[in-house]
Amino acid sequence: MTFSPPVPVAEPGALSIGTDGSIGGRTGSYVKHLRDLDGVYRDPVAFAAPLEERGGGALAYRVQEHRTGHGPGALIVGTSTLLPGRVGEEYALTRGHLHAVADRAELYHCLSGRGVMLLETLDGQSRAVPLSAGRAVHVPGHWIHRSVNVGDEPFVTLFTYPADAGQDYGLIARAGGMAQLVVEDGTGGWRTRPNPQHRGYRGRGGA
Amino acid sequence: MTFSPPVPVAEPGALSIGTDGSIGGRTGSYVKHLRDLDGVYRDPVAFAAPLEERGGGALAYRVQEHRTGHGPGALIVGTSTLLPGRVGEEYALTRGHLHAVADRAELYHCLSGRGVMLLETLDGQSRAVPLSAGRAVHVPGHWIHRSVNVGDEPFVTLFTYPADAGQDYGLIARAGGMAQLVVEDGTGGWRTRPNPQHRGYRGRGGA
Repeated sequence: MTFSPPVPVAEPGALSIGTDGSIGGRTGSYVKHLRDLDGVYRDPVAFAAPLEERGGGALAYRVQEHRTGHGPGALIVGTSTLLPGRVGEEYALTRGHLHAVADRAELYHCLSGRGVMLLETLDGQSRAVPLSAGRAVHVPGHWIHRSVNVGDEPFVTLFTYPADAGQDYGLIARAGGMAQLVVEDGTGGWRTRPNPQHRGYRGRGGA
Repeated sequence: MTFSPPVPVAEPGALSIGTDGSIGGRTGSYVKHLRDLDGVYRDPVAFAAPLEERGGGALAYRVQEHRTGHGPGALIVGTSTLLPGRVGEEYALTRGHLHAVADRAELYHCLSGRGVMLLETLDGQSRAVPLSAGRAVHVPGHWIHRSVNVGDEPFVTLFTYPADAGQDYGLIARAGGMAQLVVEDGTGGWRTRPNPQHRGYRGRGGA
């Protein structure tokens, strides 16, 4: 029976998480502006309209997060706050990604607003999970995922995922966009429809 | 440029998470009854009172969860609903654990009620993080942790942690309980005080 040697430990994070996406006690944050989404929406002509109206420096989405360390057992916790809007028929969206370590899962728990998590696999499966306050989507590994705001208010989710997951953002661009679009349905709601420019996912790290 | 072979993927979980701890879309659940906490509270004489009054089969806490799979990248998501009460001076608590894979972290996000996450390390550090709706504690690896309900309503948290973490529940028992107790402060609030029966943590897997 031996005493364990002291293990260096990270300090626990005491956080306050607002339904507006603010995290008291956060360790980092970043924002994406409208200009950062150039090429992400299907229709470049439609994209020119909000660029002209709101300017390339207008806020598109904001991330606040808390990290305690690295290593296989660490987590990253954060909020994503995606402003509402449309570009042509498409609702406001985030770039979307597959985790660089593709088997890493993620939980998104909606805190406010109305959105959809668009999920696709490399071999052509797709899901669209509606989210509102109190709803969550548990995203297993190997699912490409993107948040879409289909409401009139900011769409706020709390996410948790393994700190060693990383993000592959290039996969969607190389495929000509995700296979499905989340578009207005003509009655104020949303629906998905196939993206005619999608060329299929060519695998991770491909040209 | 090659097409990736299809990867077997788990189905995403679309969940509804109530502030009462109910999870629509859950894949599992379990409950702990009062009798399951025999030996967990410091004072066995005081423990006899609720056992007699409420019966050993009375509900102590409930866990509902959602799992999508195994493997290093998978997560377990769930709620813990801990009923209020006291045993002698001690507030109602869960057994507490260190993850069997000790470097695995965990997020607890409070959905309702008033509680404390009691955190201790093998080498004698301790923290007590107050939680109420909208507050969270990001527990890094290597922290023993236990939920304590210091309010009058169920204390509900949403937790997320790596699916391969596991739990070591014996460590606390072998140490004579956690180093700190969460007790009433005489004015309706709570405070921590050292547990006179705590003998120090003897390391994982020790006798």
